[in-house]
Amino acid sequence: MKSWLPIPPRSHFSLLNIPFGVISSKDKQLHRPAIAIGNHILDLGAFATGGGFSKVSNLSSESLGVFSQPTLNAFAELGRPVHRAVRSFLQEVFLESTPHPEVLKDNEALQKASLIPISEVTLHLPFSIGDYTDFFAGRNHAHNVGVLFRGPANALQPNYNHLPVAYHGRASSVVVSGTPLRRPWGQALPAPGATEPIFRPSARLDIELEMGMFISKRNGLGNPVSVKDAEDYIFGYVLMNDWSARDIQQWEYVPLGPFNAKNFGTTISPWVVLADALEPFRTKGLKNDVQVQNYLREGRSDNVLDIKLEVSLSQGEETIITRTSAKNLLWSWPQMVAHHSISGCNLQPGDLFGSGTISGTEPGTQGSLLEQSQGGKTPIKLNGGQERKFIQDGDTVVIRGWAGEQDGDFVGFGECTGQILPPLSL
Amino acid sequence: MKSWLPIPPRSHFSLLNIPFGVISSKDKQLHRPAIAIGNHILDLGAFATGGGFSKVSNLSSESLGVFSQPTLNAFAELGRPVHRAVRSFLQEVFLESTPHPEVLKDNEALQKASLIPISEVTLHLPFSIGDYTDFFAGRNHAHNVGVLFRGPANALQPNYNHLPVAYHGRASSVVVSGTPLRRPWGQALPAPGATEPIFRPSARLDIELEMGMFISKRNGLGNPVSVKDAEDYIFGYVLMNDWSARDIQQWEYVPLGPFNAKNFGTTISPWVVLADALEPFRTKGLKNDVQVQNYLREGRSDNVLDIKLEVSLSQGEETIITRTSAKNLLWSWPQMVAHHSISGCNLQPGDLFGSGTISGTEPGTQGSLLEQSQGGKTPIKLNGGQERKFIQDGDTVVIRGWAGEQDGDFVGFGECTGQILPPLSL
Repeated sequence: MKSWLPIPPRSHFSLLNIPFGVISSKDKQLHRPAIAIGNHILDLGAFATGGGFSKVSNLSSESLGVFSQPTLNAFAELGRPVHRAVRSFLQEVFLESTPHPEVLKDNEALQKASLIPISEVTLHLPFSIGDYTDFFAGRNHAHNVGVLFRGPANALQPNYNHLPVAYHGRASSVVVSGTPLRRPWGQALPAPGATEPIFRPSARLDIELEMGMFISKRNGLGNPVSVKDAEDYIFGYVLMNDWSARDIQQWEYVPLGPFNAKNFGTTISPWVVLADALEPFRTKGLKNDVQVQNYLREGRSDNVLDIKLEVSLSQGEETIITRTSAKNLLWSWPQMVAHHSISGCNLQPGDLFGSGTISGTEPGTQGSLLEQSQGGKTPIKLNGGQERKFIQDGDTVVIRGWAGEQDGDFVGFGECTGQILPPLSL
Repeated sequence: MKSWLPIPPRSHFSLLNIPFGVISSKDKQLHRPAIAIGNHILDLGAFATGGGFSKVSNLSSESLGVFSQPTLNAFAELGRPVHRAVRSFLQEVFLESTPHPEVLKDNEALQKASLIPISEVTLHLPFSIGDYTDFFAGRNHAHNVGVLFRGPANALQPNYNHLPVAYHGRASSVVVSGTPLRRPWGQALPAPGATEPIFRPSARLDIELEMGMFISKRNGLGNPVSVKDAEDYIFGYVLMNDWSARDIQQWEYVPLGPFNAKNFGTTISPWVVLADALEPFRTKGLKNDVQVQNYLREGRSDNVLDIKLEVSLSQGEETIITRTSAKNLLWSWPQMVAHHSISGCNLQPGDLFGSGTISGTEPGTQGSLLEQSQGGKTPIKLNGGQERKFIQDGDTVVIRGWAGEQDGDFVGFGECTGQILPPLSL
């Protein structure tokens, strides 16, 4: 698919993609929805005001108001058929041989009003996040961590293959890529076997490579979503770094799960790639030998997404420390939706799901330093001669993710970046 | 304190109280803030529009807009000095010998516009809840449940006396008193020792008697709230029933904590009693033999609230199954605020904290059926000859709470009511 707008080869934001985000610009501080295309963004508020959407039949004039909202929540709530129609229409608009040249290609005024170089905008959280739920669907990670804590025989808990284990996370501290975070203080045991905690900045600060998913539809309290209907509840996906203070976590997490170890910050990438843009990249997930309950049976095996993922760590020089794929999940997103709501729990547009840490099985494919350093025992080597067991102050971690082949058009996520600042002096 | 408005003796909503909530009425469906006073509510939107607040010096004319919001979030964010001034002024307005008779006592038009019998209004969730965090600060409950699961020697986990254990809960399914909830479906082990789960409506549905607290102030990501400043972050309190499906919980909760066992619904009372209204009822909490970390030291021992609590269960006839006090906490609300934010986690107006289940030490004082039935072994007897180990379909549970003496003015919460409906046919 070739566009009249110059799109650099191998851009994450090809014409096949059309990801949605929220921007502001120097001359207009208002937060508003946009799409990314190549090295530009299209300001959807300005585009809508300029009549750009008048040809999209299932987008009524009233619903155009969603493009002047400060988040994507209202757009998401219009439903997946509308997301699909808007994305398809925008692909047509930017196509070299567009059937609608008068809309933008030949409309210099609207180009001027709505097309902005991506370097000139500030990116914001795409959604007002109601609830954030973090799953634990990366079985390789669950296994690796289980081996460290309990040995290989009992690596996975008895429930693991029967249900997508999850916990409720902290929504308020989800931040957009580029937001620096301070190393958290907390209680931890000073050494293995100690019984009295000390209070210190976390000494085992870690990353977790995850995918995030935004919900677009309400089920209403008391109404489970069937796994077959669950795709309709999925708006799209982002990259996620679920920062984790392992020492705080180990002391606090019994019996109610992680709390301060996670709630100081979770970083997501700013551009949300629509579920439809990723349909071509379906593949098989990890095999589950357990016969799962009916409410989790999808009747298809290509139920995860083959998104290439990499994690880099840098302080000065950059080192790629992880290369893996988002297909390393035991549970699919529709299964997570079905399980989350089987109790009757109500989902809402703007709810964020995390996949859980995504790891492969080989060295260099694991999504956390806890795994890569064998529980903090063996440091990993970085370019330039540095070593790491866990994150040091000043380290910058970048997650990148894309689907598609090296020589074709990418459906990419851009970057999910975060730097860890020194702790406060308390 | 006597009022010119007839207030029934022993009303929960005495002139000492002035709790805040959100109402709608038949002739005006808009949700708007109100206070409860005796058997009436004062519509704060109408009261503000009618000039009622013109004498409150720290309430600017711009900030009056908070009383036409559909939730209390904006009012809460004005800060505790404003909450205090508004409550004091409203107490003066309703006083028999009010210094401001022209405001309401002698103003028939404004009375007509703003005073409504409480029986004529519908009550709604008082806040748009950003994040909901449930603590585990009721040590008697933690001990009782620990004994059931691990025996008396290891009843409390090693971290319990060192930090206020908590988990992030589900905000979307917090409902206002009176909202019926369906018995949730989920996975559970069919019998002790079983390894394969079955899928069924919860067979061990329980209640948890808790207090809830609403946050009014932002600390900003990365900025812990000191325990000494924490009172400024507290708006007020509600009663809470943290419904829990014990069989689902037991199967799912390792290693990340409760999820579907709790996320199908949490009921709160509609009227939020301001922190200032409860200042006279401070008392000592449970003694902690551990020397806690500095960031949790308050320098005062009267750090919990003596609120009388009772729980009734009825299907037809009503039985009071629990009588206890909110003072049965090991950790105070300021300690919870300090611990929650010590990692840098950002709190926001409208965040809800739960205390954890509140239990005494004697039979009939425990806040859950799990405790009262000894883990489901010994049924409790209800009036009329019925028995219960756990909640049955059609059961209605009412929590009541009040501070003050039987013959004085109450500072009460009214009721927190919920009925369990039969499960869906799946």
